[in-house]
Amino acid sequence: MTSAELSAAFLLQTFVILAICRLVGMLARRLGQPQVVGEMVAGVILGPSLFGLVFPAWQQVIFPKDSLKLLYVLAQFGVGLYMFLVGTEFKTDLFRSRARSAVSVSVAGMVAPFVLGGFLALWLWKVPGLFSEKATQFEAVLFLGAAMSITAFPMLARIIYERGITGSSLGTLALAAGAIDDATAWCVLAVVLASFGGGNLMAIQAIGGGILYGLITLTIGRRLLRKFGEIAEREGHLNPTLLAATLMLLLAGSWITDAIGIHSIFGGFILGIAMPRGFFGQQLRKQLEPLAVVFLLPMFFTFSGLNTRLDTVNSLQLLLIGIVVLVTAVIGKGVACWLAARLQGESNRTALAVGTLMNARGLMELIIVNIGLQKGIIQPALFSIMVMMAIITTLMTSPLFELVYRRQTNTATGEDTATAGA
Amino acid sequence: MTSAELSAAFLLQTFVILAICRLVGMLARRLGQPQVVGEMVAGVILGPSLFGLVFPAWQQVIFPKDSLKLLYVLAQFGVGLYMFLVGTEFKTDLFRSRARSAVSVSVAGMVAPFVLGGFLALWLWKVPGLFSEKATQFEAVLFLGAAMSITAFPMLARIIYERGITGSSLGTLALAAGAIDDATAWCVLAVVLASFGGGNLMAIQAIGGGILYGLITLTIGRRLLRKFGEIAEREGHLNPTLLAATLMLLLAGSWITDAIGIHSIFGGFILGIAMPRGFFGQQLRKQLEPLAVVFLLPMFFTFSGLNTRLDTVNSLQLLLIGIVVLVTAVIGKGVACWLAARLQGESNRTALAVGTLMNARGLMELIIVNIGLQKGIIQPALFSIMVMMAIITTLMTSPLFELVYRRQTNTATGEDTATAGA
Repeated sequence: MTSAELSAAFLLQTFVILAICRLVGMLARRLGQPQVVGEMVAGVILGPSLFGLVFPAWQQVIFPKDSLKLLYVLAQFGVGLYMFLVGTEFKTDLFRSRARSAVSVSVAGMVAPFVLGGFLALWLWKVPGLFSEKATQFEAVLFLGAAMSITAFPMLARIIYERGITGSSLGTLALAAGAIDDATAWCVLAVVLASFGGGNLMAIQAIGGGILYGLITLTIGRRLLRKFGEIAEREGHLNPTLLAATLMLLLAGSWITDAIGIHSIFGGFILGIAMPRGFFGQQLRKQLEPLAVVFLLPMFFTFSGLNTRLDTVNSLQLLLIGIVVLVTAVIGKGVACWLAARLQGESNRTALAVGTLMNARGLMELIIVNIGLQKGIIQPALFSIMVMMAIITTLMTSPLFELVYRRQTNTATGEDTATAGA
Repeated sequence: MTSAELSAAFLLQTFVILAICRLVGMLARRLGQPQVVGEMVAGVILGPSLFGLVFPAWQQVIFPKDSLKLLYVLAQFGVGLYMFLVGTEFKTDLFRSRARSAVSVSVAGMVAPFVLGGFLALWLWKVPGLFSEKATQFEAVLFLGAAMSITAFPMLARIIYERGITGSSLGTLALAAGAIDDATAWCVLAVVLASFGGGNLMAIQAIGGGILYGLITLTIGRRLLRKFGEIAEREGHLNPTLLAATLMLLLAGSWITDAIGIHSIFGGFILGIAMPRGFFGQQLRKQLEPLAVVFLLPMFFTFSGLNTRLDTVNSLQLLLIGIVVLVTAVIGKGVACWLAARLQGESNRTALAVGTLMNARGLMELIIVNIGLQKGIIQPALFSIMVMMAIITTLMTSPLFELVYRRQTNTATGEDTATAGA
């Protein structure tokens, strides 16, 4: 494909992605699901499980093989930019006041699914066709443990954001616990990947580098960034040089965290937390959010959907394994987090809401299982089972959340919430 | 390169592009040039003429071959989005009141350089190593005529925009004349390409299709789009569904004009003109402009710079031919447009300013000569001469414009103009 052909394919592809994401998003909202779930399902619809199955020739026209790398890069950048913006709304004061609860919930949400997932792996490792033959039992345990412990952090953040409860104690608790869990799960994944081929150095680099990046960004970085806020407030607007400097920091932070082996989105999220609050953050979100949310994020959902092949789960045994995986996932994450929050003295309503939110696996799960498939740790059938688990836990979240936590007014994307409970 | 490697390369590359574009942009502003000229020069600096010459290994690291298609697609999309936004500020009322002047200036700015360029081609066609051996004399005349007639429309629009004179009579006259000239030049280019291999059908399709697209968009399209403006005004903001719908129309318009053989940016520009004015347009620019101008447009300048090889002009004869091409270009476009505006009764100051602005060739020229090189109509030496002509006419524009037209206050990117006359 020449550059000109790729450019034309990009226009057509992005048109279709936006059209289907908005359409399914509208339908989802009518069914009481948030826009984000609609877009996640839209991604699967555009993939080989539906669009590719029914109209294979059209699927090839809209998503030619040469265009997928471009879609991947924009999807990654979009979710990185989005997580950065979520970080700029992260209230660290509130986090500190809730630190004990947040740590408890995140430890429970990490240890319980990890142990349950590990035991499950001991069984599944012996079932042919799930794990690859190269994977040792130890690697299988670590991988499934990490994959079970993941939280749909961007999804959780978006639900919290769409409900307009980003700054509330529930929002902060769930965001903090989700962030800690995901960071830990990615570190475990780094250990798995290191054990599987990269060497121990890779794991040390990922964990040590990630901690170092976070410390520097949140101390020296935060202090230096205050200047940005002062300039913006003095001038009364966020000038192009400040915006460019901010974007450069985001690109650098994403590149560094990617290079040391944890996911690039953590670089953006931590940088977002270090950004000045108030006027600066407000102006920054006004300038970046529309394109990030409406244009780039749908690409992320679509790319994940294109890798989802629901047709590979084709026997009764695999279906039963799928159900066991799903139940284990819900008990290990949702129930464990609810119990942990209760034990820390949170109200039952808040604890249930936290458990519900933490239980969603969403796209982070898709990312981790895609890495597992690509690196040859798991095989297509287990991949598909994990994808189904991710989709079902994600679809469960909104109705359950509505049940336990009454709908809030949304400040930023009003329309997305207006019909969410309808 | 795997998707993950490409994604990491994209982060690093975009960081370098933003850094160099802002740095050279700041230097340019100190020298009395606008930000846009700085970014254009930054592109050349990043290309094989400087960065690639001095640090070839580093150039390979920052701009690996596999990443260039991605850069091309984003550059095209960025300039398309930017032209769409310029279109939303295009005041058609003012255009109508100035129609006679605009048509005169654009006819002069088209016929004079086309005739002069054509005569030049009769001579240059016989000089070995300039035109390809496959090109007939007729094709050489048409190609050089079209290439001479091009106006740096996005560049002209950006200078007008940076000076905050988009809505003024000078701004509208220059934009209208520039748009007509460029559209005509692209149609002539379509004829050349059709004659060179594509068949007559391609030329008819490009010209007929372009006219049809413009008519439908500006009549039925404009009427239907009024609804967008009404919804936004009623709700008091531009909701995500409206933004998504607008982006979908932009993608569709760009795809259609690309498919029929005129450049995709015309699709976006014409759609922009058809968009509702007032509150809707204001909100749309607030949501899209920051990323388009600060993030995507530098990619466009960089991609063009990467294709610029100044080292191929390596003999006295080629240098002399280069000077003749430059002088012909300035007389054919700048002087002719000034005379045409004077004859239509414009003040000398306005006429000189219009001539100066129309004389800039900028990136549109780079695009047209890249097509010529890629399709095998011209050879690297003539390509480089044309690139030098484009750069020099573009560099001339701002100081001359400052001389004849006093600096205006800028409304949108204040800092970019604040030091422009310093």
